[in-house]
Amino acid sequence: MSDKFAFLPPRQTVLSRRQQIVDDLSNLLGPECLVHDERGLVPFETDAFVACRRLPLAVALPRTTQEVSAVLKYCHERSIPIVPRGAGTSLSGGAIPQEDALVVGLSKMNRILEIDLPNRAAVVQAGVTNIAVSQAVSPHGFFYAPDPSSQLACTIGGNIGMNSGGAHCLKYGVTTNNLLGVTMVLVDGTVIELGGKALDSGGYDLLGLVCGHEGQLGIVTEATVRLIAKPEGARPVLFGFDSSEAAGDCVADIIAAGVIPVAMEFMDKPAIAICEAFAEAGYPLDVEALLIVEVEGSEEEMDTTLAGIVAIAERHKVKTVRQSQSAMQAALIWKGRKSAFGATGRIADYICMDGTVPLSQLSRVLKKTAEIGERYGLRIANVFHAGDGNMHPLILFNANDAKDAERAEEAGNEILKLCVEAGGCLTGEHGVGVEKRDLMVHQFSPADLAQQMAVRAAFDPEWLLNPSKVFPLEGRPAV
Amino acid sequence: MSDKFAFLPPRQTVLSRRQQIVDDLSNLLGPECLVHDERGLVPFETDAFVACRRLPLAVALPRTTQEVSAVLKYCHERSIPIVPRGAGTSLSGGAIPQEDALVVGLSKMNRILEIDLPNRAAVVQAGVTNIAVSQAVSPHGFFYAPDPSSQLACTIGGNIGMNSGGAHCLKYGVTTNNLLGVTMVLVDGTVIELGGKALDSGGYDLLGLVCGHEGQLGIVTEATVRLIAKPEGARPVLFGFDSSEAAGDCVADIIAAGVIPVAMEFMDKPAIAICEAFAEAGYPLDVEALLIVEVEGSEEEMDTTLAGIVAIAERHKVKTVRQSQSAMQAALIWKGRKSAFGATGRIADYICMDGTVPLSQLSRVLKKTAEIGERYGLRIANVFHAGDGNMHPLILFNANDAKDAERAEEAGNEILKLCVEAGGCLTGEHGVGVEKRDLMVHQFSPADLAQQMAVRAAFDPEWLLNPSKVFPLEGRPAV
Repeated sequence: MSDKFAFLPPRQTVLSRRQQIVDDLSNLLGPECLVHDERGLVPFETDAFVACRRLPLAVALPRTTQEVSAVLKYCHERSIPIVPRGAGTSLSGGAIPQEDALVVGLSKMNRILEIDLPNRAAVVQAGVTNIAVSQAVSPHGFFYAPDPSSQLACTIGGNIGMNSGGAHCLKYGVTTNNLLGVTMVLVDGTVIELGGKALDSGGYDLLGLVCGHEGQLGIVTEATVRLIAKPEGARPVLFGFDSSEAAGDCVADIIAAGVIPVAMEFMDKPAIAICEAFAEAGYPLDVEALLIVEVEGSEEEMDTTLAGIVAIAERHKVKTVRQSQSAMQAALIWKGRKSAFGATGRIADYICMDGTVPLSQLSRVLKKTAEIGERYGLRIANVFHAGDGNMHPLILFNANDAKDAERAEEAGNEILKLCVEAGGCLTGEHGVGVEKRDLMVHQFSPADLAQQMAVRAAFDPEWLLNPSKVFPLEGRPAV
Repeated sequence: MSDKFAFLPPRQTVLSRRQQIVDDLSNLLGPECLVHDERGLVPFETDAFVACRRLPLAVALPRTTQEVSAVLKYCHERSIPIVPRGAGTSLSGGAIPQEDALVVGLSKMNRILEIDLPNRAAVVQAGVTNIAVSQAVSPHGFFYAPDPSSQLACTIGGNIGMNSGGAHCLKYGVTTNNLLGVTMVLVDGTVIELGGKALDSGGYDLLGLVCGHEGQLGIVTEATVRLIAKPEGARPVLFGFDSSEAAGDCVADIIAAGVIPVAMEFMDKPAIAICEAFAEAGYPLDVEALLIVEVEGSEEEMDTTLAGIVAIAERHKVKTVRQSQSAMQAALIWKGRKSAFGATGRIADYICMDGTVPLSQLSRVLKKTAEIGERYGLRIANVFHAGDGNMHPLILFNANDAKDAERAEEAGNEILKLCVEAGGCLTGEHGVGVEKRDLMVHQFSPADLAQQMAVRAAFDPEWLLNPSKVFPLEGRPAV
């Protein structure tokens, strides 16, 4: 790809002391908690964004908050850049290290510390996987709501860093709506506690700020998350339409009528074909667009909610309405949707956008996205969280053709600018990372960005934490 | 009251230029938008906290974001302290001015700018009252969820400043969970936009930070708020118990069972007597504690949810279960609860605490609160949002007896420390203001407070915005 994803220049003072740093950290943590040989470092050179890669200085794998604190204190005293890392599933390059950065991986901090049902809370270490939280509380009838497609692998710490969402966030909100508290280590090693099991907390809501901080304000080592009771039942239903615009307008009308399904996912014809070929989910192939709408509650509740949705869909000339008839069918419907990215990767290279638009603009933005694809001669598959307006156009291209890759990137940028212009934003749940940092100027004014950077500096004046991310490399304050 | 509520010393440089400032602002806004005669200033010398009062320098009443910007720019250039004010309903003294501060009142900015149903959003000016938002969208079947008892008067801007809650926040969350975006004027007059109708926004979540900022990070002039569909029906039910502990344990068990009513309010015997005498709500007078539990949905849903709650209440030996039989009865039940503070004010002076505790601690903290009341020889009535663990002990005293007032204050402090020690916090929805600023050291470590103040300084390095609030006067950084 282009040098759009350039890194900050390495700090020579750090590189020249590499061996000393490795020795010191090895002594501090024990050699079993420090990766520094080149072969061991390779898995840490990129993440699920893959569009750029860079070997880290070393990788520290602390086991406790105290060890994270000791590592940060050490690095802070020597101005060594730090890149926090969960499972490396970031789609925006949030966990890609700089050449001279120490990666701090949270994989050894993977314990669930407490399940507290009267307070609807679980306390977990940051390296616990998303799915592990729901699995641990499932026997008690609870779950943890945010469900990124990568939930088998991604960690709670990473979810907090990116304010991750998922298909079921329409009803339950994204990470920030389900996070109650964190233990966080500041850049100088200070340990602070934010929030907790009690409502609100007095003082500023630094917890909200930390959710979505992309590893730039500190390293979260423990989190207290909200648990939600599992519904009595849930039922995904397929709605097929003759055009993407009709499906988009139907979504807007459902929400405007005050109906909030648990999930409302959109797939256009290319996405349906790709997912059906992979998952055999039973998707109709004779429609231009598909909505997967999930309702939940008792049988009566589901019937009532569904009747309201069907009535609205009929106003938009819905062609197919197909309810899942069994738990297996329901699981298959979700398997098809959740494997969309993987299934696309089987047939082509692709980049995945994450723009979000107001629902009233959905239909127009879909139409304009198709026009952009035609203009660039690129196939675009749309599969996304329609109820949230969180679009994921997948732009298919051939990575071995430099021209094609460049075209894909340009088309992607145009789509994201379109989302911003429509009153939306660059990212719904994947974060800015390295991928979208240069696009931030299209969404935010210089005053907006200056204020964000001033807040960043209040936590990390030297820009040591994940420094190459979120903000354009140009226009930063001198440190 | 004691000098606990001391103000910062006046800035002589500002006071000596008072006439010039009044003339300048009068020219800037027009004389009809500036209050400066002593009689006109009196209504602005305190708020619903009333424990201290101070005349402001003057009161500016701008009509537009541009005017707010011009006023802040003017004050910033001359280091004039500023206190933003909504309706002055703060229970923690958040809107009380300093002698040398310019109050910026938002009362002229009271228009609803846009109702956007497909995006479930309304755009309103900051001076709009809380109830006006729900009234405007009610014909469309929607409402705005946070419902402070002062909702007839309090403004959306004030709600954002204090992250206000209300009885129905158990299900729908507090202000921060229902706020999508703001237009905010920074201390130097710069106008920034945070959030918007689209999900998430990229960059840091400064919106979360602004919610609960207590007027210290800027002045919010417009807000985009989330609208929620009105439920099919709602039904408050009274549950009477033989002890406060039984009622408290019942609340914890209901939540632990995964049942989330819309509201779950607690009243002890003194509170029941006070409210019943005032509102004739039909509360049972032969019980020690009462829960008002509201369920909502279709008739079947309400029946099912209620059956589950009754079963749990029976395990705690519930004495009375009384369902409202009509809309009028339901309204009366809520009238009794919502008038609790006013009704208490009729019979005695009181201070209202706002501590919040984990639900598993509710029963223990209630018991300890009663012990504190006995030890100080003070009557304490408890009426609060039990489902959130957000306690409101009302400590009754005689304001004309200095000793009694001092005892009340000490007892209040002891109760708040008890909440913190139980894993809770100082404030659930009323904010820190001037009332609880000295108690912040009991909840937050020096590192926690230093980090909060560093963030504050990133917005307002000179501490011009609402400077005497939130943080203890001692231990602040030099400006």
